[in-house]
Amino acid sequence: MSDKLIIFDTTLRDGEQSPGASMTREEKLRIARQLERLKVDVIEAGFAASSNGDFEAVKAIADVIKDSTVCSLARANDRDISRAAEALKGARRARIHTFIATSELHMEKKLRMTREQVLEQARLAVRFARNLCADIEFSPEDGYRSDPDFLCRVLEAVIDEGATTLNIPDTVGYAIPELYGNFIRTLRERVPNSDKAIWSVHCHNDLGMAVANSLAGVKIGGARQVECTINGLGERAGNCSLEEVVMAVKTRRDYFGLELGIDASQIVPASRMVAQTTGFVVQPNKAVVGANAFAHASGIHQDGVLKARDTYEIMRAEDVGWSANKIVLGKLSGRNAFKQRLQDLGIALESEAEVNAAFMRFKDLADRKSEIFDEDILALVADESVTQEQEHYRLLALSQHSEMGERPHAQVTFSAGHEEYRAEADGNGPVDASLKAIESRLQSGAELLLYSVNAITSGSTESQGEVTVRLQLGGRVVNGVGADPDIVVASAKAYLAALNKLHSKAERVAAQG
Amino acid sequence: MSDKLIIFDTTLRDGEQSPGASMTREEKLRIARQLERLKVDVIEAGFAASSNGDFEAVKAIADVIKDSTVCSLARANDRDISRAAEALKGARRARIHTFIATSELHMEKKLRMTREQVLEQARLAVRFARNLCADIEFSPEDGYRSDPDFLCRVLEAVIDEGATTLNIPDTVGYAIPELYGNFIRTLRERVPNSDKAIWSVHCHNDLGMAVANSLAGVKIGGARQVECTINGLGERAGNCSLEEVVMAVKTRRDYFGLELGIDASQIVPASRMVAQTTGFVVQPNKAVVGANAFAHASGIHQDGVLKARDTYEIMRAEDVGWSANKIVLGKLSGRNAFKQRLQDLGIALESEAEVNAAFMRFKDLADRKSEIFDEDILALVADESVTQEQEHYRLLALSQHSEMGERPHAQVTFSAGHEEYRAEADGNGPVDASLKAIESRLQSGAELLLYSVNAITSGSTESQGEVTVRLQLGGRVVNGVGADPDIVVASAKAYLAALNKLHSKAERVAAQG
Repeated sequence: MSDKLIIFDTTLRDGEQSPGASMTREEKLRIARQLERLKVDVIEAGFAASSNGDFEAVKAIADVIKDSTVCSLARANDRDISRAAEALKGARRARIHTFIATSELHMEKKLRMTREQVLEQARLAVRFARNLCADIEFSPEDGYRSDPDFLCRVLEAVIDEGATTLNIPDTVGYAIPELYGNFIRTLRERVPNSDKAIWSVHCHNDLGMAVANSLAGVKIGGARQVECTINGLGERAGNCSLEEVVMAVKTRRDYFGLELGIDASQIVPASRMVAQTTGFVVQPNKAVVGANAFAHASGIHQDGVLKARDTYEIMRAEDVGWSANKIVLGKLSGRNAFKQRLQDLGIALESEAEVNAAFMRFKDLADRKSEIFDEDILALVADESVTQEQEHYRLLALSQHSEMGERPHAQVTFSAGHEEYRAEADGNGPVDASLKAIESRLQSGAELLLYSVNAITSGSTESQGEVTVRLQLGGRVVNGVGADPDIVVASAKAYLAALNKLHSKAERVAAQG
Repeated sequence: MSDKLIIFDTTLRDGEQSPGASMTREEKLRIARQLERLKVDVIEAGFAASSNGDFEAVKAIADVIKDSTVCSLARANDRDISRAAEALKGARRARIHTFIATSELHMEKKLRMTREQVLEQARLAVRFARNLCADIEFSPEDGYRSDPDFLCRVLEAVIDEGATTLNIPDTVGYAIPELYGNFIRTLRERVPNSDKAIWSVHCHNDLGMAVANSLAGVKIGGARQVECTINGLGERAGNCSLEEVVMAVKTRRDYFGLELGIDASQIVPASRMVAQTTGFVVQPNKAVVGANAFAHASGIHQDGVLKARDTYEIMRAEDVGWSANKIVLGKLSGRNAFKQRLQDLGIALESEAEVNAAFMRFKDLADRKSEIFDEDILALVADESVTQEQEHYRLLALSQHSEMGERPHAQVTFSAGHEEYRAEADGNGPVDASLKAIESRLQSGAELLLYSVNAITSGSTESQGEVTVRLQLGGRVVNGVGADPDIVVASAKAYLAALNKLHSKAERVAAQG
């Protein structure tokens, strides 16, 4: 059996299914480039048939990414599979990932299909896909809760039709490592042609065991592909965390004995980019990528760490890309220095006009903030690309005042299309007043589900605030992110960014978990 | 073997060791009361010998808690153990938890002791402790990386001396479920008197497998106690999460076949209280207690959930204490209604004066905010108790103004002891200006490590902002939390709260991991 473990990243597909995590084409493209730098083997870029937006995102990624295989999800029908193949046309290496549910519960309640119908549809879908693409992955949705006899029949059939990877999802996060590992092993032993495909694991974290389950599928079950996401992003409690799986395999090489293609030093930059783009914060006590993951508080530990690093550390922070915040640019930096820094950060702006727009923002920021960090630049560019793309609403001016004992007041000027609006309102706080001012004109009726702020850099009160606003309207949930040294301005930007997403983005069908 | 699984919560000891998570006596007491409502079997309340503050906190908890065993950590020496016994004197059920490192690395580099010295000290410590308390837990620190032969000798010796619980820590989070489970089983098989003690697991989450490792220790190894923390709080990547272990054992009863004393409906309230008290946010995609843990985004999933809940849900949100935000009180609510609500929330204020002070704040808040939620009350009381306890600095007035294109300005009036100060400053934003105004007077020199804001309730822009400020000064890290509908006011409160902690709290020795 191969000793190479394939890392299949689904941040842009299963991760994006998190309520509020939906991303624009440009955001997805930026993350895909970072995943390529991280050297993931396969990037699941989206679910092409689910919406035109997703189709365009998959296509854009397929056209640009060279080193990783680019994959699109597709339900087990000809239309979905054709759309996936079309979106992937430009890819150097393409994969179509098709799925259908195989558990009794899902077949009966959701699909309303018999076993024989499901088996036949799986077989036909893989046959159809294989004519369009050499690299075909098949997933029996809710596989872990499926009847093993039936599942073996389906898996044998799709291998016969040419499926090259078989992925066994624990769709609801119900598995236990020992049981899941044995389940994969049993399937591999019982399916007669099992050696003709690579086996893959896809675990959800509802009981906090997605990483351990995935690794048991590898060690006990013999799987050689793990499906995972940056920061464990994903619906409900999320998917298996890429960073944890990768560092477990690297740190416990004595046990796993497997090779990885991943460049671990790109893990923390990838984690930050995904957190900033989606507005999903990483808690401080998150393994590998949390702010405290390599910090020690207690006297005894500090003493131990000073005496011998190994006493309390099994990984090195710098190996996963943690580095001290560096002042990279300031007020006097020129356009070339700025452009160079963008390149070093792996940010490829598509035109000189985009670089110019970003540089203008940079100068504006540098006027107000003496030290500009990498994080500031990432936020600035993220902000820029969202605005460029969907600039229906744009903040033009904001003035606010608050005083304890009095009611805060704000005045906001913004554009909507070609119109300019000026509005004012009172509120419980200056943020509330500013958002109320905007609402007084737009009356979007959106419900605020979440409001959070993080300082973009630490070590100084001069940091920019990065505000995430999550809105819900008519069953759709979107996040807007805004950054500014003034938290009230950042909040208004974030609110308008979220309204822009609500304004421009079409509904979509979505996918399996 | 017993089918009861003992839940040992160490949020107040190992959890509190997280950089920035240190809590006051009142905060610890409030959390201990919530842990009792959650019906945890053992509450590790602190490390009595590490500081006077910790001694007082353990004592206060021991004096108040009736249903759970109260435990203090102690190094393996007579002084630590005596202090623990003294602090626990008032407890209905007391436990002393003593520890010494047994791995070669720790013995050589940290303790600079030989194996025989460590063995002798462990034996003497347990003998000494057993004379003071009937319930003795012993932990070989870094046990999982210790030589099994030596470890078995130590464990046999301490059981002979009367240890009633043996806890095997994976101090650095290095274990894998299969290996850790087998390690515990091997120890239990090889230690001749192993059946005279209860075996316990204590896992850290550096590779994301603390929960799976703990459960393998239970299922494969035969342990009957799990050490864990609310939200997985703890140094570095934290400890095993109580909520995940509990829900895994409950949800997979078919596999574990174990009984728990826990009242799961108190899990979410406990999670919120710990997050609010420490300022350690819970990420949305955290199992069980994350905001998205029970949310579904994708069309297919929503459809599935509507057709049959079990298709995508293995637990019910209401079983772990999630409930819709309810408007509980408003402007017209009286003191009795407020007091009743405090009782329903399990908040026991210690005197009528405290109730009155909290009620005043409530009325003040209700004047500015039309709907008061349970979360608002929790924040208000948390805020109150911190201020009461250490009211060296107190915010009296704040006025600020910002306008895009101009430099934000703030005026702050605050008291320090019996002095009153008035200061003003410009800043990059109104928050920066306010904190700079405070610093211009106090010149604390503290470094800002973290600044974050969360809305306390969702669904409205009228929510209070809850600001967490983490400061570092002279090697100490503290969090300050402040809540207010005005985010700038909340920030100034949080900053002063953190300065209060720096001002009042003594240094301490700290403990094992």
